[in-house]
Amino acid sequence: MPLTFSRIGILARNNDARVEQTLRPLIAHLLLRGAQVFVEDELRLEVAQTTSCSRTDIGRQCDLVVAVGGDGTLLAASRAVAETQTPLLGVNLGRLGFLTDVLPEDMRAALDHILAGEFIKKLRLRLSAHIVRANGDDDGENFHALNECVIRNQEFARILDFDTYMNDSFISHHRADGIVVATPTGSTAYALSGGGPVVHPELPALALVPICPHMLSDRPLLVAANQRLEVRISAAPDSIALFTADGQLTRALAPGDRVLIERAQHDLILIHPPDYDYFHILRHKLGWGREQDTSRSG
Amino acid sequence: MPLTFSRIGILARNNDARVEQTLRPLIAHLLLRGAQVFVEDELRLEVAQTTSCSRTDIGRQCDLVVAVGGDGTLLAASRAVAETQTPLLGVNLGRLGFLTDVLPEDMRAALDHILAGEFIKKLRLRLSAHIVRANGDDDGENFHALNECVIRNQEFARILDFDTYMNDSFISHHRADGIVVATPTGSTAYALSGGGPVVHPELPALALVPICPHMLSDRPLLVAANQRLEVRISAAPDSIALFTADGQLTRALAPGDRVLIERAQHDLILIHPPDYDYFHILRHKLGWGREQDTSRSG
Amino acid sequence: MPLTFSRIGILARNNDARVEQTLRPLIAHLLLRGAQVFVEDELRLEVAQTTSCSRTDIGRQCDLVVAVGGDGTLLAASRAVAETQTPLLGVNLGRLGFLTDVLPEDMRAALDHILAGEFIKKLRLRLSAHIVRANGDDDGENFHALNECVIRNQEFARILDFDTYMNDSFISHHRADGIVVATPTGSTAYALSGGGPVVHPELPALALVPICPHMLSDRPLLVAANQRLEVRISAAPDSIALFTADGQLTRALAPGDRVLIERAQHDLILIHPPDYDYFHILRHKLGWGREQDTSRSG
Amino acid sequence: MPLTFSRIGILARNNDARVEQTLRPLIAHLLLRGAQVFVEDELRLEVAQTTSCSRTDIGRQCDLVVAVGGDGTLLAASRAVAETQTPLLGVNLGRLGFLTDVLPEDMRAALDHILAGEFIKKLRLRLSAHIVRANGDDDGENFHALNECVIRNQEFARILDFDTYMNDSFISHHRADGIVVATPTGSTAYALSGGGPVVHPELPALALVPICPHMLSDRPLLVAANQRLEVRISAAPDSIALFTADGQLTRALAPGDRVLIERAQHDLILIHPPDYDYFHILRHKLGWGREQDTSRSG
Repeated sequence: MPLTFSRIGILARNNDARVEQTLRPLIAHLLLRGAQVFVEDELRLEVAQTTSCSRTDIGRQCDLVVAVGGDGTLLAASRAVAETQTPLLGVNLGRLGFLTDVLPEDMRAALDHILAGEFIKKLRLRLSAHIVRANGDDDGENFHALNECVIRNQEFARILDFDTYMNDSFISHHRADGIVVATPTGSTAYALSGGGPVVHPELPALALVPICPHMLSDRPLLVAANQRLEVRISAAPDSIALFTADGQLTRALAPGDRVLIERAQHDLILIHPPDYDYFHILRHKLGWGREQDTSRSG
Repeated sequence: MPLTFSRIGILARNNDARVEQTLRPLIAHLLLRGAQVFVEDELRLEVAQTTSCSRTDIGRQCDLVVAVGGDGTLLAASRAVAETQTPLLGVNLGRLGFLTDVLPEDMRAALDHILAGEFIKKLRLRLSAHIVRANGDDDGENFHALNECVIRNQEFARILDFDTYMNDSFISHHRADGIVVATPTGSTAYALSGGGPVVHPELPALALVPICPHMLSDRPLLVAANQRLEVRISAAPDSIALFTADGQLTRALAPGDRVLIERAQHDLILIHPPDYDYFHILRHKLGWGREQDTSRSG
Repeated sequence: MPLTFSRIGILARNNDARVEQTLRPLIAHLLLRGAQVFVEDELRLEVAQTTSCSRTDIGRQCDLVVAVGGDGTLLAASRAVAETQTPLLGVNLGRLGFLTDVLPEDMRAALDHILAGEFIKKLRLRLSAHIVRANGDDDGENFHALNECVIRNQEFARILDFDTYMNDSFISHHRADGIVVATPTGSTAYALSGGGPVVHPELPALALVPICPHMLSDRPLLVAANQRLEVRISAAPDSIALFTADGQLTRALAPGDRVLIERAQHDLILIHPPDYDYFHILRHKLGWGREQDTSRSG
Repeated sequence: MPLTFSRIGILARNNDARVEQTLRPLIAHLLLRGAQVFVEDELRLEVAQTTSCSRTDIGRQCDLVVAVGGDGTLLAASRAVAETQTPLLGVNLGRLGFLTDVLPEDMRAALDHILAGEFIKKLRLRLSAHIVRANGDDDGENFHALNECVIRNQEFARILDFDTYMNDSFISHHRADGIVVATPTGSTAYALSGGGPVVHPELPALALVPICPHMLSDRPLLVAANQRLEVRISAAPDSIALFTADGQLTRALAPGDRVLIERAQHDLILIHPPDYDYFHILRHKLGWGREQDTSRSG
């Protein structure tokens, strides 16, 4: 029987000793099953019968990419595979992640299922952001994010003034530490810490979550994912800020700069084992299943 | 030039002295413009050349219904017109509402625009709920809501145990005072007081907002509006609760009862003046435009 | 060596099968150590050499009272012993409580320490509330609470209008489901679910926590415990509410009724084993010690 | 009749054009009333019959200091006058502050009352913080704050790991953007934006408010003001943070550094006009007096 995926790429967290312990049996198993294996060159992992491959090329070379590490590893991997629409599978290093939902001990069984075509495929919408400077210059750089884009005050003791727009309609003026623009995937990340709701991944929505807002009525706002959002830094001279995509790419923002954020053209294709259950992971990660008490009577 | 709407119904809050002061000039103006006017019979408002009409019939008789009062009046009116898909316009009594966005003093000008075909038409999704009793009996009653359905503890000192499901998938077990299932329209109502986000009306989403939850991680959840939600009361003998739709229709719930909530077949068709701006109303109602300060320095 | 406490009373949750399994070895152990044991008559527990005693009398008869059950049991017990200033020890039924911090398996060892004078004694401030009716009549009833007093809307779909005062100074007008006035002990109970902070038991403070407030700026307020608080129900005819003390004593409130709340004359005297650590219990109960994750990277 | 205060110092915000317009009539009025006036030398304001005085000396020279500007101006002024226990009066520049509660137009009347001994004197507790480095070195520097001390991640995309202690008892481990340790005065400043409660200034409490905490149960904690608090940065190599007092004094923190925070020896003595009402200012600043609506019905 032919494999559903025959050319499989491997990306991993680079600076973690546990990675190699997970990678070697993973690769051995894939080779045993007859797959062709491409390993990210930066991992410097010499395994016979595998092909070394750059991260920028791996999406094009493969029809499935496996990311091994934590959710942060998968966030980075998503930037390598989303535009070629290569499906991505996340294997964690022993602690269930929201996105890396295969445990090392279940890895072989999960892959057997997946190679046999038994898996769940889910799309996760991503963000595409670019910066237009106060003088109208466009940096010409596109930032992609699977979790969120954050705009925040650079000198943390100083409140940031900024305006938000949806499709050029003025939403509001804000005074806050900053704002998170999150995808459903990112709704359980930084946006949640900032007071935002959990957004089911099949709801095509973007969440705007002000961080430590000055006005108590400045609450999280959810809009449809096909809307174009803009965060415009105040023109006042001391309004300096930082832009960050997925906590991994950073740029400085100056007074009057504008960050334009919209849904990226390509969703991430996530592959899950056949028993995948979003709410199960949510309950586990947020501790919903655990006993917890207040001293409330009754 | 023919009128865009020629048969116009009038619904209003019944027990408010200011209503008649607004209704008489409104009706006079509509008659002057050549419209046929149908007045809800319960208002007992005798005006020559108008036709008295029951609330249940008004949607079928008219091609536009005007609701005069507060947002609560419009919530009630929506149940009279949504199923016949008759457009609804909200006129307030002097205080801008989220839904009743025409002020009495702007009423004539707004209607002239609307009758000339200059208006903004927006759809607002609604909820349809029904109750299945613990023994499997279906009450056979459908409850419609434009804002929200609420399930809540009846003896308020006693915490309520219940489970939530999305399309028969278990979401979570909750211990709380209750839960709000809100539409985008209802996101600025009770759900907001309970800690939910603002949801833009063009995002087809439902918000589940636990009220005073026992577990601090039991946070608001947003799902796509095409999902069927269920709230299942615990089978423990003292689990008694109340179900309410838009704060206007109420039923008692017993242990093991289930409330099934989904998007109603028909959206409400809301008519707004041509200068309608959702964010403008939001800023005004939530006080976003007003100056407010903390003693935070910088 | 004489026992620190020689006359020991036993109170317990009445309707719980596990209680007797804990009570019998507890009583046997106390008798073995030479204590005189008084058992609440309602428990109908016949044990040789023990004296049956009414709940109202137990504080006067004993120099230590042991409450066996959950935190709710201890709340009820506190009303029986606080005014006679009889120290109270809480034994749980297998699940650590905020207040019932002795586990059944540690019970004998804990009591040996306590009878030998090795224990930690902590005072917990309590509330005293009474109701003054709209016509000026005082019900003449005093309600005591260790956790909180709650004033809440009776028809839950209807928002409640009320005013708050501190020592006759107007604090604010509120529109909400209700308000919690909590002690530090109660800060981890209902007040926490409503958005209030954790208050260390050695801070003599009262917390006013509005429940689902209409205004987003209507936030929890902490005041010194020696201030007299008042909650005044709106005089509008439909303002009906419920008053509850510790979720156990309830009275109906009518328009214009006032609830006066102040620190009770007598604190509760809580006895803890010598290794008692408030923050340890807090971490355990709120799950602070457990691993929990968001998908936040970095 | 002798003046209650005869030697009056003037501090002001330095870079604000409106300041001089308020200062000149203020000084003229004080001279007219027979007071001796000391003007901060940095203001470079030449007025006959006044004495120029350094900010560090003004507390010792005067028996009342008037701070003209916003709440930030008063925060800075408090560091100049608290240790000499010189009373401080705050005059704003046209917008009521929490602390600067005299409006320019009421300034002369307010001062006449105050000079005649008609005023309200309130103490505001302050913080004293110092930093002990990972190697045990004490910087030897004391930071005073009237609002709050903040410890926060320096690279904002990276979560900060830290532990908190009260009198050397471990409170909890935190993962967050940082933490605010606020006085009652600071409870309406940054701590409020971060989800903390309002703390009445006569409650001697300190509030620990985690900023964007990873764990949803990591809630604000209130402790008695006579407790010594410690925030200990994780020893992990990338744990770099910033310490800030009142948003005005800043120091870098490295892995393992500890910040020790306790109540300062001297409270700030605030002078208010005789009609001062804390709750009136609170209602005004937090918009409690204003009409605000949700679309909640009933």
